[in-house]
Amino acid sequence: MGRVTARRRATRLTADTATKRAETLAVEEPLEIRLNGTPLTVTMRTPGADVELAQGFLLTEGVIGDRDDVAAARYCSSGGADGSGLLQNTYNVLDVTLAPGVPMPEEDVRRNFYTTSSCGICGKASLDAVTTISRHCPGDDPTVVAADTLVALPARLRDAQKVFASTGGLHAAGLFTVGGDLMVAREDIGRHNAVDKVIGWALERGRIPLSGSVLMVSGRASFELTQKAVMAGIAIMAAVSAPSSLAVDLATQSGLTLVGFLRGDSMNIYSRSDRVKQ
Amino acid sequence: MGRVTARRRATRLTADTATKRAETLAVEEPLEIRLNGTPLTVTMRTPGADVELAQGFLLTEGVIGDRDDVAAARYCSSGGADGSGLLQNTYNVLDVTLAPGVPMPEEDVRRNFYTTSSCGICGKASLDAVTTISRHCPGDDPTVVAADTLVALPARLRDAQKVFASTGGLHAAGLFTVGGDLMVAREDIGRHNAVDKVIGWALERGRIPLSGSVLMVSGRASFELTQKAVMAGIAIMAAVSAPSSLAVDLATQSGLTLVGFLRGDSMNIYSRSDRVKQ
Repeated sequence: MGRVTARRRATRLTADTATKRAETLAVEEPLEIRLNGTPLTVTMRTPGADVELAQGFLLTEGVIGDRDDVAAARYCSSGGADGSGLLQNTYNVLDVTLAPGVPMPEEDVRRNFYTTSSCGICGKASLDAVTTISRHCPGDDPTVVAADTLVALPARLRDAQKVFASTGGLHAAGLFTVGGDLMVAREDIGRHNAVDKVIGWALERGRIPLSGSVLMVSGRASFELTQKAVMAGIAIMAAVSAPSSLAVDLATQSGLTLVGFLRGDSMNIYSRSDRVKQ
Repeated sequence: MGRVTARRRATRLTADTATKRAETLAVEEPLEIRLNGTPLTVTMRTPGADVELAQGFLLTEGVIGDRDDVAAARYCSSGGADGSGLLQNTYNVLDVTLAPGVPMPEEDVRRNFYTTSSCGICGKASLDAVTTISRHCPGDDPTVVAADTLVALPARLRDAQKVFASTGGLHAAGLFTVGGDLMVAREDIGRHNAVDKVIGWALERGRIPLSGSVLMVSGRASFELTQKAVMAGIAIMAAVSAPSSLAVDLATQSGLTLVGFLRGDSMNIYSRSDRVKQ
């Protein structure tokens, strides 16, 4: 399993026993994403699919629009922290070089969606920012999916979660066709990273906007995840658990079909329910 | 319930029925934290206990050490975004004024723990940064807790989660005495915010470092949550679900007792198991 899981010794305590044993854990490490050599952000992630993660992040933050906007992505080597001058590569710093003509973001990219020029930050400003920045708003997407197909997705995503079974500590995101076939699934300690990874996977294959596909996430639907779906041109997003108020508001405003509490044979549809056929 | 929950209409679909009804959701809105008027960070949070949240964040990021380091905290009013000049208050921007002599952080505070001066970012660098910056490392804390007390905490935290029951969408964090009595519980759409809120609560009462207390969280134990516990001088942290590899490594290095999979009458203890008495 390499760097995706790690083993640590732990004491297992029950009502009347105490045993020491090795436990398998999900690996969490920082990834610094650099843009043309300049540090942009640090995310705590599970190693693996880092190039997908970085590219998915850049797309969903509005820095790039498609794969042609990226000239190269490579891990950074550096001198040893002990000053020995030895080259080392921790695989925790990824430098993305933008293609000629693609502008650097002007300010802290993480703030683009949230802050306004005045003091009046609010959820409404965030919604407006996303729908303004997104090049692929799903409003007009004619994609339709059968309810029977949706109810089968949680089990299919779970089947693809090889790591979860061993650690209990990873979120998953999967892209499915409207026929219910799995295109790609990724796991990560951070739910936003798992979504960035599947979107980055699609970007590398020239499949942005992701019309005609369904994004399935293993947990809740936050504003951030919904934002990523809208930025990637996804028309239908489904979550096993609850959405937040702002996630529903963004879905409504941008024309995304948002499904929550997708469990057993039932679901809640919070926006654009016309895309789900019973 | 005010701004903590909101109602949105949804379509409830089961195998053979479709009904429209109002669903109660957890509210998610951005909070911009400013320091002496300068924007510092934006977090997506559930409104409520915002001053606790901001102060807990500042403490766990190493900006402040105790309540005397904060002179004031107030919501920001501003001219209307439409240029009308009307004063409005969205309660989504909080300005914290540091006490005289407390230095502003030199750079992006969210990067302090992760980045090093060279290219060699890695988990190890993060661990070293936390144990260096923390003024309250719990290593020498003689706090001891009975296993019987720990196994009772998840139910007690759940009892305090009034909102979760109605939305299914909120994380919780609680501070307990080693006798198992609840000191404070807070809920939030973000697990890190819930922890910041309870730590901010303690800060306001002059109870930092939080020796002699147990931090209980409703979900998993990430590096970020473990870092917050260490920064607040908490000696024992327990989670219902799995810890990450880096969370265990930080707990081990800093002398924090980290308990995971606290369910039923059993648990895993990943570090400093001597503080748990069977």
